[in-house]
Amino acid sequence: MPETDSSTLTAQMADAIRFLSLDAIERAGDGHPGAPLGCAEIAVALFTRHLKCNPADPEWPDRDRFVLSNGHGSMLLYAALHLAGYAGLPMEQIRRFRELGSHTHGHPEIAPELGIEATTGPLGQGIANAVGMAVAEAKLAATFGPGLVDHRTYALVGDGCLQEGIAHEVISLAGHLRLAKLTFLWDDNRITDDGATDLSISEDVRARFRAADWQVIDADGHDVESVSAAIRLAQSDPRPTLIACRTVIGRGLPRLEGQRGAHGGRVFETDLAEARAARGWDHPAFTVPDDVEAAWRAGVAERNRAAYAAWQARHETLPAPVRVEFDRVSTGRLPETWRDALRTQRDRFAAAGAARPSIEVSAEIVAALSETIPELFSGAPDLEGPTQHKGELHAFTAQDRSGRYLHYGIREHAMGSMMNGIAAHRGLVPVGATYLVFSDYMRPSLRMAALMNLPVITVYSHDSIAIGRNGPTHQPVEYLASLRAIPNMLVLRPADAVETAECWEIVLANRHGPSSLICSRQPLPALRRPGEPENRSARGAYVLAEAEGTRRVTLIGTGSEVALALAARDRLQAEGVPTAVVSMPSWEAFAAQDAAYRRQVIPRDTVRVAVEAALRFGWDRWIGEEGGFVGMTGFGASGAPEALFRHFGITAEAVVEAARARLT
Amino acid sequence: MPETDSSTLTAQMADAIRFLSLDAIERAGDGHPGAPLGCAEIAVALFTRHLKCNPADPEWPDRDRFVLSNGHGSMLLYAALHLAGYAGLPMEQIRRFRELGSHTHGHPEIAPELGIEATTGPLGQGIANAVGMAVAEAKLAATFGPGLVDHRTYALVGDGCLQEGIAHEVISLAGHLRLAKLTFLWDDNRITDDGATDLSISEDVRARFRAADWQVIDADGHDVESVSAAIRLAQSDPRPTLIACRTVIGRGLPRLEGQRGAHGGRVFETDLAEARAARGWDHPAFTVPDDVEAAWRAGVAERNRAAYAAWQARHETLPAPVRVEFDRVSTGRLPETWRDALRTQRDRFAAAGAARPSIEVSAEIVAALSETIPELFSGAPDLEGPTQHKGELHAFTAQDRSGRYLHYGIREHAMGSMMNGIAAHRGLVPVGATYLVFSDYMRPSLRMAALMNLPVITVYSHDSIAIGRNGPTHQPVEYLASLRAIPNMLVLRPADAVETAECWEIVLANRHGPSSLICSRQPLPALRRPGEPENRSARGAYVLAEAEGTRRVTLIGTGSEVALALAARDRLQAEGVPTAVVSMPSWEAFAAQDAAYRRQVIPRDTVRVAVEAALRFGWDRWIGEEGGFVGMTGFGASGAPEALFRHFGITAEAVVEAARARLT
Repeated sequence: MPETDSSTLTAQMADAIRFLSLDAIERAGDGHPGAPLGCAEIAVALFTRHLKCNPADPEWPDRDRFVLSNGHGSMLLYAALHLAGYAGLPMEQIRRFRELGSHTHGHPEIAPELGIEATTGPLGQGIANAVGMAVAEAKLAATFGPGLVDHRTYALVGDGCLQEGIAHEVISLAGHLRLAKLTFLWDDNRITDDGATDLSISEDVRARFRAADWQVIDADGHDVESVSAAIRLAQSDPRPTLIACRTVIGRGLPRLEGQRGAHGGRVFETDLAEARAARGWDHPAFTVPDDVEAAWRAGVAERNRAAYAAWQARHETLPAPVRVEFDRVSTGRLPETWRDALRTQRDRFAAAGAARPSIEVSAEIVAALSETIPELFSGAPDLEGPTQHKGELHAFTAQDRSGRYLHYGIREHAMGSMMNGIAAHRGLVPVGATYLVFSDYMRPSLRMAALMNLPVITVYSHDSIAIGRNGPTHQPVEYLASLRAIPNMLVLRPADAVETAECWEIVLANRHGPSSLICSRQPLPALRRPGEPENRSARGAYVLAEAEGTRRVTLIGTGSEVALALAARDRLQAEGVPTAVVSMPSWEAFAAQDAAYRRQVIPRDTVRVAVEAALRFGWDRWIGEEGGFVGMTGFGASGAPEALFRHFGITAEAVVEAARARLT
Repeated sequence: MPETDSSTLTAQMADAIRFLSLDAIERAGDGHPGAPLGCAEIAVALFTRHLKCNPADPEWPDRDRFVLSNGHGSMLLYAALHLAGYAGLPMEQIRRFRELGSHTHGHPEIAPELGIEATTGPLGQGIANAVGMAVAEAKLAATFGPGLVDHRTYALVGDGCLQEGIAHEVISLAGHLRLAKLTFLWDDNRITDDGATDLSISEDVRARFRAADWQVIDADGHDVESVSAAIRLAQSDPRPTLIACRTVIGRGLPRLEGQRGAHGGRVFETDLAEARAARGWDHPAFTVPDDVEAAWRAGVAERNRAAYAAWQARHETLPAPVRVEFDRVSTGRLPETWRDALRTQRDRFAAAGAARPSIEVSAEIVAALSETIPELFSGAPDLEGPTQHKGELHAFTAQDRSGRYLHYGIREHAMGSMMNGIAAHRGLVPVGATYLVFSDYMRPSLRMAALMNLPVITVYSHDSIAIGRNGPTHQPVEYLASLRAIPNMLVLRPADAVETAECWEIVLANRHGPSSLICSRQPLPALRRPGEPENRSARGAYVLAEAEGTRRVTLIGTGSEVALALAARDRLQAEGVPTAVVSMPSWEAFAAQDAAYRRQVIPRDTVRVAVEAALRFGWDRWIGEEGGFVGMTGFGASGAPEALFRHFGITAEAVVEAARARLT
């Protein structure tokens, strides 16, 4: 019996991906065969010849990162990780593809312990995550040196990812930043869900990448040698690299190969038989021949053995302080001193008692935190001036990787998704600052941050009609509601400088999801006094001013409107109506309190009136359907801030009226 | 006294823009001087030498469209329109720049009667609107011929617009569609808010446009002749054209010229004096010399007089049916027969009583409507198959302008904003179809549609965890809430085929804002019977099944969950609990009803339980804070639909339990 020659074995390594994918998709009853079949050789080239990783230690900090940006091709990733020997993805998981409770979800869901670096599916997000990861790598390499941090980031990308606008934002920025260790492998199959790509695109994709200062290499996507050679070339260029891999979608599935239907079409038993015959694969379902499996293990685990051992040796011989620091940041733990630093600052704000824009206060906090938290990594989409979150940090650039501030350009969506990648990479604490209205531009990435449980911090300025003359395009009215609606998104809107510091403490303690800190452009008067050691904002809402007498009215405010509530309380008390003011910086934190606390802060048997320069949407939960609400009922307008507050009836008098109307 | 020579006069025509802008910005106390000063010559070249328009008839259907995509430079537009003689923008309006109640808002707000074609400010939106307008023009020219429709679309665009992802989506698509009558004038001033553009971009913008098959022309942005010559070249090329106008930001304002601070910096009285001295402009504030004004009037109104008269003559001599039809579509009126066509279809659905996916029903409706409404213009971002809204329509392409279906490519944001441009242009009824989760990708454009009161229709499929195995990335849970939160957005979620037809009637009747029609991928059982002439969905919510006996429980459902509510009602009635089911396809429509109707449909003295496979967020308004809710509490998961509904407890039994727990 002749020995399997190496080219045949290589072909079988790719076919192993094909048949695991086909078997799993057929068994699940749905899935997307096009990409796993079309990119099998690309995966073999990358995983078995280049990717630095250790299946026995999936979270090795210096591993290469691989992001499957075309997440619908999830079986490609599961099959490759299974074949590479990742223990979390045994054959049983492949069999359970797309079953509730399995790890082999319809689209990959972040699980670095399994080798899955990011949740992908919504197109364009994965490549943007990859760009963020490459930024994190470059910054950490500058901090800790190439002995500890020297890895590459690869993303597999389809036409869909490249057509999305976010792709252009990150392509442009990645080229500008010369992220040399970033490589995109483009599955250039010329087919999308609608059919041939020329239905909707005739752009020269290669020229577009070159215009953004990328290296572009063509490869035959079904030739492992060709792809492998291209990856090697990518490793020696100072620019990021696009490898354009010409492929056939659904390759190996005769009925659908090269067809539109291959993308997400059903796979039937007859297809399996035809595919097996066509590829000469005569192994039963969910079975990989030993020699193929051995070749995969050799290509991944064995190939990387020496590099892994050498890294471990370097890591072990590090001076203890460096090792401790490296281990701390790579596991996402903050330095122990951050809380004290913040509280010191909080107390200083309380003592000063000054009226200040909360965005300015937040910037001052970030400036101080950046001393305490060396891994804090700030940035803004061309709003350095108005958001002030650069402070004394210098810029992270193509020339200077030591910088800690990223000029994202006018690219909010890129910022959002790159911050997700930075957080998923671990090692840095990403903070982004922009205007609240621009959160819509990054909304798909905010959702992904929430879904991935990533501690991504976004600070928003210009949070209401108080911005005035720039008008309704720049005045948020529905944004508090729409951010609060995202599951696992912590939204905080502080009322003064002290609350801003308290909210920052909550934000930093929130390690399992994103936070949105909503700040004002205009000065907010100091409402809190010195000498309160407790973080009162931490419970989400608290009684800022108790009623004099038995409480009859509860006024609830957030952010800039808490001061309005206090003014209204003065008038009501003067009329003999015992009135309390509740400051409610965070709905989510308040909702997490026990019922007794919630009832005590906002008793249902009092008249409840909320005031917020935004829509009522969602407020009935806290004030009841009979409660009063003073705020916006539609879009804002262009005019002086005071004129707008009068025009829209957001005044202390209106709050008083709303309470009065409900007093029996 | 020497006569003013023409080059001096031309310079003064530009300076008239500069000083009107400076005077207005100084008076308002804020604004953005950078663009009006930097682009004054571009405006002179475009408005006084090329733009086809008639200040005395601003809504002339065959006018060229001009979009100021860098909307912060609003004074440029106001000054140009004022100088051109648009009656709606007299000097008094220029003086009242940024005052509440004026037409001269901080950012331009759509008012075609004033010459303002789109609301702009959020970057990238304006150029995308312009691409939509160019599509509308091309389609209408194919329908009505060049004698009636033959105009160009111009957009002034800054670096910010070009860095945004949406820009790339529309640049790519405009090149693909060969929109020859589309011209972008790029204010290439190399400065953004953060400073020099090279802080965040080193891309070759010209090469990027060429890669997308645009003509690219360089011009000196401060030389009217140079810009004018470029515009002329643009007019004779089969591709869309980018004119890269090299400019100096804030040109003419010595303190800020060429500086970062020019973008949005304050202008002081001393600046005005310095600028006047530097430019030799010795006229008082808000004063334009007669010869300059005359030159503007000659350049705009007089230059266009003959073309306008000729067009009117052609229009008048049209065969009456053509003229009537053209006038109808250009004023945005639907043909009178549409409602009958829809009702016929509704009755057919009622008679058939079949369980069908509402997305399929919507597709069938659109297919029928496209017969009745010839201006219906459908499209999808690469989801033709799953959304089915192409039907028998053929594609609008570079080669065939008669098509009525646009393959937007995987570019949701482009679709959203282009539909805004199509609607703003008038003449077509844009309908876009995609998955509900992708609405986040187009959210900035949805907001703009609402703000602009544009009748843009988006149909969403895959509306809940019922999509199953594709998992949480593709399962909307917060989207109903976040769409309902947008002011002036009509959201409808029909429960069966009949309601889908009724909702389409509501959507088409909604001519002053966008509509979101939320559809299921899975079949919805028929709930409505034949023989109901009234559109029951029109009031937003109605009693689908009244209680037998005095009502004690009100179950409220939307879309696919109405059937669950009916099943729960059966059980409760069997237990002797009189229970009604309310179908609530639209919160907004219900909120618009009088209180008596609302109390009658959802009485507060009954136990209220809502069921919706989405978050509770916002529901307290309808069910009260003590009401029951059966739905999602966080993100979904990958698994079979039935398994997911069980897992997340969205079952008839859970609805029964929620009601029982609240019965005293």
